[in-house]
Amino acid sequence: MSLPDPSTFSATDAAHHLRAGRLTATDLTNDCLARIRARDGLVRAWAHVATDTTDQIARAPAGPLHGIPIGLKDVIDTADQPTAYGCAAFAGHQPEADAECVTLLRAAGAIILGKLHTAELATYHPGPTANPLNPAHTPGGSSSGSAAAVADFHVPLALGTQTVASMLRPGSFCGIHGFKPTLGRYPTAGLKATSHTMDTLGVFARALPDLLLIDSILAPRPPAPAAPNGHAILIARTPAWEQASPAMRAAFDSCAAALAAAGIPVIDRPLPDEIEAVYGFQADIHARDVHDLLGNLARDHPDQVSDAFKALVAKGAAISDDRHDANLDALAAAKRALPALFDGIAAILSPAATAIAPAGLASTGDPSFSRIWTAIGTPCLGFPWGHDQGLPLGLQLIGAPDSDRALIHLTIELLSRIHPA
Amino acid sequence: MSLPDPSTFSATDAAHHLRAGRLTATDLTNDCLARIRARDGLVRAWAHVATDTTDQIARAPAGPLHGIPIGLKDVIDTADQPTAYGCAAFAGHQPEADAECVTLLRAAGAIILGKLHTAELATYHPGPTANPLNPAHTPGGSSSGSAAAVADFHVPLALGTQTVASMLRPGSFCGIHGFKPTLGRYPTAGLKATSHTMDTLGVFARALPDLLLIDSILAPRPPAPAAPNGHAILIARTPAWEQASPAMRAAFDSCAAALAAAGIPVIDRPLPDEIEAVYGFQADIHARDVHDLLGNLARDHPDQVSDAFKALVAKGAAISDDRHDANLDALAAAKRALPALFDGIAAILSPAATAIAPAGLASTGDPSFSRIWTAIGTPCLGFPWGHDQGLPLGLQLIGAPDSDRALIHLTIELLSRIHPA
Repeated sequence: MSLPDPSTFSATDAAHHLRAGRLTATDLTNDCLARIRARDGLVRAWAHVATDTTDQIARAPAGPLHGIPIGLKDVIDTADQPTAYGCAAFAGHQPEADAECVTLLRAAGAIILGKLHTAELATYHPGPTANPLNPAHTPGGSSSGSAAAVADFHVPLALGTQTVASMLRPGSFCGIHGFKPTLGRYPTAGLKATSHTMDTLGVFARALPDLLLIDSILAPRPPAPAAPNGHAILIARTPAWEQASPAMRAAFDSCAAALAAAGIPVIDRPLPDEIEAVYGFQADIHARDVHDLLGNLARDHPDQVSDAFKALVAKGAAISDDRHDANLDALAAAKRALPALFDGIAAILSPAATAIAPAGLASTGDPSFSRIWTAIGTPCLGFPWGHDQGLPLGLQLIGAPDSDRALIHLTIELLSRIHPA
Repeated sequence: MSLPDPSTFSATDAAHHLRAGRLTATDLTNDCLARIRARDGLVRAWAHVATDTTDQIARAPAGPLHGIPIGLKDVIDTADQPTAYGCAAFAGHQPEADAECVTLLRAAGAIILGKLHTAELATYHPGPTANPLNPAHTPGGSSSGSAAAVADFHVPLALGTQTVASMLRPGSFCGIHGFKPTLGRYPTAGLKATSHTMDTLGVFARALPDLLLIDSILAPRPPAPAAPNGHAILIARTPAWEQASPAMRAAFDSCAAALAAAGIPVIDRPLPDEIEAVYGFQADIHARDVHDLLGNLARDHPDQVSDAFKALVAKGAAISDDRHDANLDALAAAKRALPALFDGIAAILSPAATAIAPAGLASTGDPSFSRIWTAIGTPCLGFPWGHDQGLPLGLQLIGAPDSDRALIHLTIELLSRIHPA
């Protein structure tokens, strides 16, 4: 039985064909490796590729992801592959153990195909990756290689992380689904930590059911979801709206209009003040956390980190304990306002980035539209909606904490009923 | 931007790439046509192929299915393509108008790529189609070509019909999703009618979200679904269990066990008597309906219909008005028992066929496991679960009437959490 190009398959479909005996793990992996060889000279998504997967395939247990190749952002430790955190100070670094998420993936039968370029230490200084849709533009960051590899059909799934906007922004720029689950839903042990307040492990996929599949692996015993809060979609422009391009504003408005035209209740009301306020101090919490966790790198290896990183550490150093405590108190107050935020609301609609991917690789783009949601820990699921200058625009749906699976189903449902022009 | 083989894409993914400008309708259609040319000598799915789609593509409006190639069972009238109902008496027949479902598809932008072989008049005498997974075996019927074309990546979606088991059985035999919606949900005007009691238009797909997409087109204003009845899955062996192969019995039991192991409540209780009774008289309603609607063909063109068809008409002729009325009364009583059937139940799990596809093309297989559900009009969604002798086994989830979209979401959810061995 002849099968078309298997690198095109979603993980869900590939798993089906593998179980059916219509595809072997070796053929699937080799097809993905061939795609990487053909394309990665241009895209530069991969920091390390596991070119010989014979042992991994031989050892892969039967499981939901048996034989499925997956890529990992290079801030996720792997015992068998180098992990350099996108930082010259860690060039050639070989962790001794797999991160907990890698252990879960391997136990489910996944093939770890390699490590994907990250902005330096998952912050702002970009790696070499280009946007596969137009290599003169950034793929976004910091999970740059992860988004690019999935968008370019190198792997059906890749893990990334988000502390400010590092899943939703590259997902938006590359035209795929970036999913940042509820804070703490997926294990972060064995990730290079940048913020104990906000680091969140996430997943890129081209097909939404793949997010349900991998959620079952990475959250094998998730908290019980609360009862649905309502059926309406809340329109959230947020203070980041000031940064949004005209094309993004038009795309957002067209999606809200499409929802309403499909008979879905759309509510436009202000966010609770405590939640809107997070926009103003999230960057300070982030900078202070980076300073506390990684500041030693800027001090001890100043020649091996970027000026951008040193500036971020310096910004964090300037935030006093009193101010940081006040920020954390304000964040706690915002989280207490979550029930008011979601009263009657199934999900919130917001842009996933301010615009299309900017030209050039010097900046990974503006993170404004993710600041609030990353800090308050709500699940966020990005999806492409419209285009500008030949590149995709992306929006996101944001759910109540622990509503992750319902949020994925809602996104599947809505995207089967509404369509961009 | 290079894309892998587009014939692999689901309709959902193809629509995304078409809107993104990464794929053109011409390239997608040509890739599907190339796949048909390469494979249909073996599979023989197509009664007619629209080899020149230039005009269709030029005229296709913007819409959710813009540029998506779709195949139609050759009992669905098309104004631009011959429609022979799998019957020698209609060879070369050219309908004057599109069936209502075709009008809906075209208005959504779909490309009607051609007509797919059906068993004669959507009954039992098989067409020429082989099972693409093993051409020495039947693809099932009567929607034989529709199932085979989707399973073999000729088109992402195909319409079929079910009056006894003509969606769920071929879907099961070909390892894809056959979806028979609630009776009456999709329009049947312009289909060759075989039973006013049970004819149901359905869809084959490889990817479950595609069923939500096309449901939005074919049921633009569906009845409001009832509130969910419960969270449990009811295990239904039904009287057809006697016909099930050992491998099918084992597959069914393993799926029920996997559900329970995943923490999903599984209930094993008898069906209401009125519903179980349908198994005994569904074939008689079918035969009588075929006699009433198509008996003239057997009388007027006895040399142009099969012996099997003539036998079915004769069986229907032997069913008296009194007996037929009693059967219809019993069917009405079964429908009144639907609330009891679904009390506390999210969906019913049952085999989709008695076994793998039988060897040979002389029979389309045993329809036993669909008799009850087709007659009472519940939505049924088939999915592959396990294998026997290298061919797929299929199960089905059955929902309460008008719960179609919830049934699709439930299937997506469960299949992301449970997996065959």
